[in-house]
Amino acid sequence: MSLDSITTALRKHLPKGRVLTQPEELRPYECDALSAYRQLPMVVVIPDTFEQVQSVLRLCSEHKVPVVARGSGTGLSGGAMPLENGVLLSLARFNRILDIDVHNRVARVQPGVTNLSISNAVADDGLYYAPDPSSQIACSIGGNVAENAGGVHCLKYGLTTHNIQALEVLTIDGTHLTIGGQALDAPGYDLLALMTGSEGMLGVITEVTVKLLPRPEVAQVVMAAFDSVDAAGAGVTAVIASGIIPAGLELLDKPAIDAVEKFIHTGYPKHAAAILLCELDGTQEDVTAQIERVNRVFKEAGAIDLQVSHNEAERQRFWAGRKAAFPAMGRLSPDYYCMDGTIPRKHLAHVLNQISTLSEAYGLPICNVFHAGDGNLHPLILYDANQAGELERTEELGGKILELCVEVGGTITGEHGVGLEKINQMCVQFNAAELRQFHAIKSAFDADNLLNPGKAIPTLHRCAEFGAMHVHHGELPHPELERF
Amino acid sequence: MSLDSITTALRKHLPKGRVLTQPEELRPYECDALSAYRQLPMVVVIPDTFEQVQSVLRLCSEHKVPVVARGSGTGLSGGAMPLENGVLLSLARFNRILDIDVHNRVARVQPGVTNLSISNAVADDGLYYAPDPSSQIACSIGGNVAENAGGVHCLKYGLTTHNIQALEVLTIDGTHLTIGGQALDAPGYDLLALMTGSEGMLGVITEVTVKLLPRPEVAQVVMAAFDSVDAAGAGVTAVIASGIIPAGLELLDKPAIDAVEKFIHTGYPKHAAAILLCELDGTQEDVTAQIERVNRVFKEAGAIDLQVSHNEAERQRFWAGRKAAFPAMGRLSPDYYCMDGTIPRKHLAHVLNQISTLSEAYGLPICNVFHAGDGNLHPLILYDANQAGELERTEELGGKILELCVEVGGTITGEHGVGLEKINQMCVQFNAAELRQFHAIKSAFDADNLLNPGKAIPTLHRCAEFGAMHVHHGELPHPELERF
Repeated sequence: MSLDSITTALRKHLPKGRVLTQPEELRPYECDALSAYRQLPMVVVIPDTFEQVQSVLRLCSEHKVPVVARGSGTGLSGGAMPLENGVLLSLARFNRILDIDVHNRVARVQPGVTNLSISNAVADDGLYYAPDPSSQIACSIGGNVAENAGGVHCLKYGLTTHNIQALEVLTIDGTHLTIGGQALDAPGYDLLALMTGSEGMLGVITEVTVKLLPRPEVAQVVMAAFDSVDAAGAGVTAVIASGIIPAGLELLDKPAIDAVEKFIHTGYPKHAAAILLCELDGTQEDVTAQIERVNRVFKEAGAIDLQVSHNEAERQRFWAGRKAAFPAMGRLSPDYYCMDGTIPRKHLAHVLNQISTLSEAYGLPICNVFHAGDGNLHPLILYDANQAGELERTEELGGKILELCVEVGGTITGEHGVGLEKINQMCVQFNAAELRQFHAIKSAFDADNLLNPGKAIPTLHRCAEFGAMHVHHGELPHPELERF
Repeated sequence: MSLDSITTALRKHLPKGRVLTQPEELRPYECDALSAYRQLPMVVVIPDTFEQVQSVLRLCSEHKVPVVARGSGTGLSGGAMPLENGVLLSLARFNRILDIDVHNRVARVQPGVTNLSISNAVADDGLYYAPDPSSQIACSIGGNVAENAGGVHCLKYGLTTHNIQALEVLTIDGTHLTIGGQALDAPGYDLLALMTGSEGMLGVITEVTVKLLPRPEVAQVVMAAFDSVDAAGAGVTAVIASGIIPAGLELLDKPAIDAVEKFIHTGYPKHAAAILLCELDGTQEDVTAQIERVNRVFKEAGAIDLQVSHNEAERQRFWAGRKAAFPAMGRLSPDYYCMDGTIPRKHLAHVLNQISTLSEAYGLPICNVFHAGDGNLHPLILYDANQAGELERTEELGGKILELCVEVGGTITGEHGVGLEKINQMCVQFNAAELRQFHAIKSAFDADNLLNPGKAIPTLHRCAEFGAMHVHHGELPHPELERF
């Protein structure tokens, strides 16, 4: 279908000014927060209502036009990158909180509502929405569901998938599905979990019911410094092994501490090889008891310095450094690339040492600031996009780090999704049978492959090509692909 | 394929004595714990190894013979009911714990391992596996995954789906899938949650990696008596609203209390219209603080009697009545039928009153003993199977109760699954588009519908027939079905 005819058809269903086709109008949509990848969409639509979304999808389905849904565009893996021949469906105007049920501790919200505004809306009731991605001031809840977003507090409170209760979804042909409900369990296959983290490939989310939690009475942070990354890694496993589940347990290595201390003064000990920030929350009695135990555990693990926040200002100061870590990179390097892999906690020290070796081999500095408690690494590779070939070397190094995560039994994503960024590494994570099963699921929702095609799940053909480039120990990762 | 030829083919792949065809050998497999439904299978196979299961599935797939997998046969919804023309695949010999990783707090076990034996195996390490169905001494972990089993402690610790980390699965054509892993998040669609609760219809589980939790330092029970079911219901919502998540929060109504007190003396107050058992666990400081708050909340909700267990013997005595409630029904009635529906907590009092009205209308007594904290009802309908028509009236009454759950925004199952028992109520719970989506998922794994066919997800044809019988307010629940 030509651009003119699809535009004319779309304009019949949408209010004036909500179908964009001029390059200057399309420009803001050319990428999400993975700005290394850019593409102008064919057309952008900005519907107001469920019925308008349904009409757009029916039209696209009928004329076989691909559709990419977009929330706030804060995604880090290119999941909302548009297609040259496709419709970019913005859900920005779906920005209302529809209902807050304090009694059942749930809120019904539209997908374009920002993560933080949900917690703000229920703050007076002593409640909050737990998952807290760094972008929570801007990112949309629909995008959080699509990418199964996490955050500092996921260790104790779980990912997005553990904090939502129901979805309203439209499939590509405009079919309306209600998924999940008000109860803990639902009969039938668990489509709620299936949809969460499906990166916009199975349906378009038009409403989300989120769970709300009572805000803990008290939160305090223990900051522990160690003279080696190995000792800090041991501290992480020892805390978890002691039976305590901290609200957050973050690690900063020396390069990250140095960058942060030059940027803002947080009082992190400069002689430390690594520090851990361990937040405990709950009632005051419980937090006091836990801090005592955590201090003991860190001492036994060899902590060389221990500090506890005694009021909210101190707590905020401890976190300020962690929160400033990404902006602080700007002083060290013109560009940085944030990776996202997850490993079993016990391999923390080994993997950090290997990353350091890779960093030297590629001549690209790496800072580590990450969710240590759940083994969710975020190596920040520092590079200069203006140096020819440096982005390519950075991407290759990033790929190696992800493959290292898989090697030790981990995964290529913790909370950012696969999107375009990590699609090749999916070939390392899964074998052909598993990828075929993913494609079968996709077909069960979207047989013509129109919703966000080319993201998250690689074709077997792509893996064969990638496999031919990346030979492991002299063997293709998918020898069975030779049959294809 | 004839019985003789399938038997001959199966015997080539299995050890001697593991392919059963004689009626007396088949008899133990004719039903699971929903013994109202019985059917002898065509043949029973009892493999020892992964490869043997794979061979059985390949053979059945090739010859289009349906297969029903079975764990311990303790399921309450008929999920493991055999088929006259099908193979019953027993996983009873897959009964080994393969690996315990105290460090990462996971255990790798075969599907035939019993739920309780996992906790026993890790007790010396201070760990346990949290979901605790009443049948935990006998039920298998593979069956727990297939039905997404729950238990008293699910309120705080979640259902099976929240407590497993990875599965090894064989699909009907013998394809081996590794699902999930050692990390909190996994890339690709969430097949782990999809497989959990899929009632044996998507694949056969050959290995389960379960999460282990540190055993809480202390557990204590508060027993609160109320002079009305309404007040007890208000007590439940008030505890949850206070921000406390008890380890368990159970309700027994007057008929249940009377039955229990006649059966064993537990000291439940006989003048109470309902009692709540509220278990708190954690560190001693935390439990003491929580008991104080729970006592205050119950008092405000109108509790007429409050007792707290002060040692393990008292705690066991409080629970003894709850645990004896089902056997105690044997003194009241020759047979009982245990229903399983879930409702939003705020409707507890309304639904219990409606159930009481239905009980009078049908002339069948009902006792209520259930997981009040998560709104998971277990009405026990007392009947006499030897009275002509009484089972049929019981089933009809049970169906009405499930439809009542759906009406108030709840679901037709909390933890027992749909199986055969509730398949008609799925037509009330879901519309045609949603059921079609379930069938598409099934086809993505098992296009020939050979794995446990006829369970859990009704055909649209079946719903049309059921809809024609059960007319709601003069309207079919699925008017769109007239198109089929």
